[in-house]
Amino acid sequence: METDKNKVGKYEFLAEPFHCDFSHRLFMGHLGNHLLNAADFHSSHRGFGMPYLNPLHKTWVLSRLAIEMDEMPLQYSTFAVETWVESAMRYFTNRNFRIVDTDDDSHVYGYGRSVWAMIDTQTRRPQNIMEIRDGEIMKYVDAEKPCAAQPLSRVRISEGARLVRTIDTHYSDVDVNGHINSVKYIEHVLDLFPVSRYKEYAVKRIDVAYVAESYYGDKLSFYMEQLSEEDFLVRITRHREDGTDETEACRCGIKFVKDYK
Amino acid sequence: METDKNKVGKYEFLAEPFHCDFSHRLFMGHLGNHLLNAADFHSSHRGFGMPYLNPLHKTWVLSRLAIEMDEMPLQYSTFAVETWVESAMRYFTNRNFRIVDTDDDSHVYGYGRSVWAMIDTQTRRPQNIMEIRDGEIMKYVDAEKPCAAQPLSRVRISEGARLVRTIDTHYSDVDVNGHINSVKYIEHVLDLFPVSRYKEYAVKRIDVAYVAESYYGDKLSFYMEQLSEEDFLVRITRHREDGTDETEACRCGIKFVKDYK
Repeated sequence: METDKNKVGKYEFLAEPFHCDFSHRLFMGHLGNHLLNAADFHSSHRGFGMPYLNPLHKTWVLSRLAIEMDEMPLQYSTFAVETWVESAMRYFTNRNFRIVDTDDDSHVYGYGRSVWAMIDTQTRRPQNIMEIRDGEIMKYVDAEKPCAAQPLSRVRISEGARLVRTIDTHYSDVDVNGHINSVKYIEHVLDLFPVSRYKEYAVKRIDVAYVAESYYGDKLSFYMEQLSEEDFLVRITRHREDGTDETEACRCGIKFVKDYK
Repeated sequence: METDKNKVGKYEFLAEPFHCDFSHRLFMGHLGNHLLNAADFHSSHRGFGMPYLNPLHKTWVLSRLAIEMDEMPLQYSTFAVETWVESAMRYFTNRNFRIVDTDDDSHVYGYGRSVWAMIDTQTRRPQNIMEIRDGEIMKYVDAEKPCAAQPLSRVRISEGARLVRTIDTHYSDVDVNGHINSVKYIEHVLDLFPVSRYKEYAVKRIDVAYVAESYYGDKLSFYMEQLSEEDFLVRITRHREDGTDETEACRCGIKFVKDYK
């Protein structure tokens, strides 16, 4: 099936030498950043991105992100991120990703899924996506292009999850909106595991549900539940220095695999 | 003066949306990463980079890095990093950087300086750079191209520097060589300052002297000495969990400025 270039954006990236881990493969956090870049470029080029929305006091907010890999790009390899809107409703859009070898379209590294809401930057209330340019986003919906990643899962964590780390947030955690950067949660979660885990396992899939924004100065606590040798859930809460005002910020599911493919 | 493209490499980068701080300007750490990328591409394209050296069990080691900015690229702007070897001696090369607007060569963001050594990856001993391809690096030396950054300074820290933070090292700190990534030191050092400092000041210059490698599992301690309202020195030591085996890993000088230009 021919890709509809009007609907599907395709952006090339390099697995930069210092963005790779000891196994010479791209860090999941950096891949996540490339996916967010691709989403940003795709929506901006089609007139419903931040450059159009921000003067209207509206912005996209990432609500869910899942990345499921068969293989991670090796250091110095170039790869492309394809992204498209699978569906758009009043308050949410589903956006998919396909990560593929730049030189060989049959060499697929993996897929991603995401859900985005639109909010008013002043009231923080959800906005009707169909009111933007008269629902023009529907022109770009591609419901046919296959996405081989499993559907987004709910990430249900039991009350028995164990507090494994509490960290401070710093200057480099904060994005242009003053919130903790979405990708930083992924990095902090994967940093909960010792390097020995990455010597034996690769990350097959990560599911992130962004529940509430956290801010510079918040402390973040990480509660982990191990479901099997390869499956973990992590709840991240934000709270004050003295531990009060603890609120759930984010939930993650992490699935490891012994070997890719 | 015409740039000698054989000697000077020029690489384009984007100030990616999620690589910018709350002021919508590129984080210094990400700029540092782009400089290291440019150095890597420049040396590889000319036959004395890692792809040639690694099979010979040799590698470049960054010994000093200084970045001095008149302005930081704004979110979404494209910029180019020029890099060239200013001089090469038996055991060290001096490599310079110029960061410039892609569309306007007279719009210079800043400059950088660095010193690199070559070592044997097994013995970790310094190697004679002139023995690589019969000293071919000398063909690429450009001693004429101007670099407006101040010379590398010594970064002398007094014994009175105060311990301000101790951190653990994690999976995402570790580079392909198993060492703590050079850019991570910059991020950790700039994270010692509260966001309020970055609301009032910008980083004018950072000097880093890499003294000894640190590894995953090391704890890093940061000792700070304040010289003036705008000038700080930081010593980073690596040590074991119990505080023993404390060794200096890195020294940094940070110069802030109220406003760029």
